[in-house]
Amino acid sequence: MRVVPIGDKVVVKRMTREEKTSGGIVLPGAAQEKSQEGRVLSVGDGRLLADGTRAAVQVSEGDRVVLSPWAGTEIKVADEELLIVSEEDILAVLD
Amino acid sequence: MRVVPIGDKVVVKRMTREEKTSGGIVLPGAAQEKSQEGRVLSVGDGRLLADGTRAAVQVSEGDRVVLSPWAGTEIKVADEELLIVSEEDILAVLD
Amino acid sequence: MRVVPIGDKVVVKRMTREEKTSGGIVLPGAAQEKSQEGRVLSVGDGRLLADGTRAAVQVSEGDRVVLSPWAGTEIKVADEELLIVSEEDILAVLD
Amino acid sequence: MRVVPIGDKVVVKRMTREEKTSGGIVLPGAAQEKSQEGRVLSVGDGRLLADGTRAAVQVSEGDRVVLSPWAGTEIKVADEELLIVSEEDILAVLD
Amino acid sequence: MRVVPIGDKVVVKRMTREEKTSGGIVLPGAAQEKSQEGRVLSVGDGRLLADGTRAAVQVSEGDRVVLSPWAGTEIKVADEELLIVSEEDILAVLD
Amino acid sequence: MRVVPIGDKVVVKRMTREEKTSGGIVLPGAAQEKSQEGRVLSVGDGRLLADGTRAAVQVSEGDRVVLSPWAGTEIKVADEELLIVSEEDILAVLD
Amino acid sequence: MRVVPIGDKVVVKRMTREEKTSGGIVLPGAAQEKSQEGRVLSVGDGRLLADGTRAAVQVSEGDRVVLSPWAGTEIKVADEELLIVSEEDILAVLD
Repeated sequence: MRVVPIGDKVVVKRMTREEKTSGGIVLPGAAQEKSQEGRVLSVGDGRLLADGTRAAVQVSEGDRVVLSPWAGTEIKVADEELLIVSEEDILAVLD
Repeated sequence: MRVVPIGDKVVVKRMTREEKTSGGIVLPGAAQEKSQEGRVLSVGDGRLLADGTRAAVQVSEGDRVVLSPWAGTEIKVADEELLIVSEEDILAVLD
Repeated sequence: MRVVPIGDKVVVKRMTREEKTSGGIVLPGAAQEKSQEGRVLSVGDGRLLADGTRAAVQVSEGDRVVLSPWAGTEIKVADEELLIVSEEDILAVLD
Repeated sequence: MRVVPIGDKVVVKRMTREEKTSGGIVLPGAAQEKSQEGRVLSVGDGRLLADGTRAAVQVSEGDRVVLSPWAGTEIKVADEELLIVSEEDILAVLD
Repeated sequence: MRVVPIGDKVVVKRMTREEKTSGGIVLPGAAQEKSQEGRVLSVGDGRLLADGTRAAVQVSEGDRVVLSPWAGTEIKVADEELLIVSEEDILAVLD
Repeated sequence: MRVVPIGDKVVVKRMTREEKTSGGIVLPGAAQEKSQEGRVLSVGDGRLLADGTRAAVQVSEGDRVVLSPWAGTEIKVADEELLIVSEEDILAVLD
Repeated sequence: MRVVPIGDKVVVKRMTREEKTSGGIVLPGAAQEKSQEGRVLSVGDGRLLADGTRAAVQVSEGDRVVLSPWAGTEIKVADEELLIVSEEDILAVLD
């Protein structure tokens, strides 16, 4: 089953500690319980602009991204935990 | 009786646990009491833009959708419980 | 005496329980004291847009509408209780 | 002395209970202490738009209007109590 | 020393009780400690618009104005108490 | 070392009591601990507008300005205390 | 591993006290625990504008910048502590 995000939403799979190489992201302090790093699974067709067109999302499927702490809504699809965030909650891409 | 949503509103029928196949959405933790998954029954003609035109809603009748937790207004029409949400409370389509 | 709403305002007459056919709207839980269903009596000439024109209100006189709970200002005109709401507090039309 | 409102401001003289004919407005419940009905004395030249022009105020001198409860600033000019409200605090015109 | 306000700011000299003729403004109730009436000493070149131009301030030097209660910043220049307000805190002109 | 402000920011050096001539600004009451008067050291290239251009800052290097109370961020550069404020926190120029 | 910021985000490496020459920035009072000075490592392609284009970020890689206190999200990449801030949290460049 595919989860196709709407508008500026992005579906992300959080990376577990094991999946992260030594270069992985760690958020010091309180935000550490959940990894703030994830892999983009799918992106919406972008934020609605004043003239009705859409601004393409700046990350793409497969990107490894850094998320704002506590961002997004967690969902479980066929026993897989996913996170749906807004584009503005994505801080950077790790490449 | 048809419920025709206004502007960026969307009428959704929540999917009960039984209706959901194994691929259904489950929201871990507190949000679990109500299913966050639903079927679109009807959509409004979209959000009003600065120039007076409207941006078509990005989901269509029959789509299976994932909703933000606690979103929308519940109504009961001829004993059927429906939910009226704003487009921005729809996170993704499941296909 | 006619009540002519201004801008995006809409005058609505709440439908009492008796007036509602079996298909009427019921809001489960706390919002139930007041019926969330009403009949449109008159509409303003619409919300002001950035260029000074107005976007016509999406409901018309005589429409049967579903309202957000607790929306609008109640007034009494010649012993008749009316409700003045903003267009965005109207969720849907029942037809 | 004339009170000339600025921008989207409107000067209103509250109608006392006696002045109101049987068709007068009564606000049920708490808002009842002050009459929510008034007569427009003068209007500003309208709300400033993005391009620097102004959108004319939708009510005119002499109109009998319904006000949002608790709106505006009360002033006393030569012993006469007046109310200065913003246009968006005017709900409707009674004609 | 001249106080030249910036943008949509306006420098106002509060009118004391004595200066006010019988037609002066009195704010009933709590707001009465400070006079809500003043004389405009100087105006800024107006609010910045989306296209970078400015919308001229709607009051002029010498105007007698009515202010929102508690608006603006009080300053003392060469022992003279002045008030710097934003244009939108000016409700009306008395003429 | 030069401090070059970004966008609509302005670097201001607060004027101490001694530096102020008799015409200096005094803020009555609580705001008095810190002088609300300062000298502009440098200005950013202005606030970003909707079309991507910038609106030039309305004050210039050397201007003597009046600031909103409690505005800006204090920094210390090479033992000199400076204040970085947004343009909208500057109320007026003294000339 | 490179951290590529999105949109108006900027990756900054905080300067430790030792790294700062005598000209470094010190924030008096509470904000002093963390240095408010940093070096820009990388910038996003800028804030999204109404027409879908982007306004280039006003700082560049290598710039020495002054930050608003408590701004941004701290991350640790391969044992290096970095800060991801929004452009508007950068107050000035030191040159």
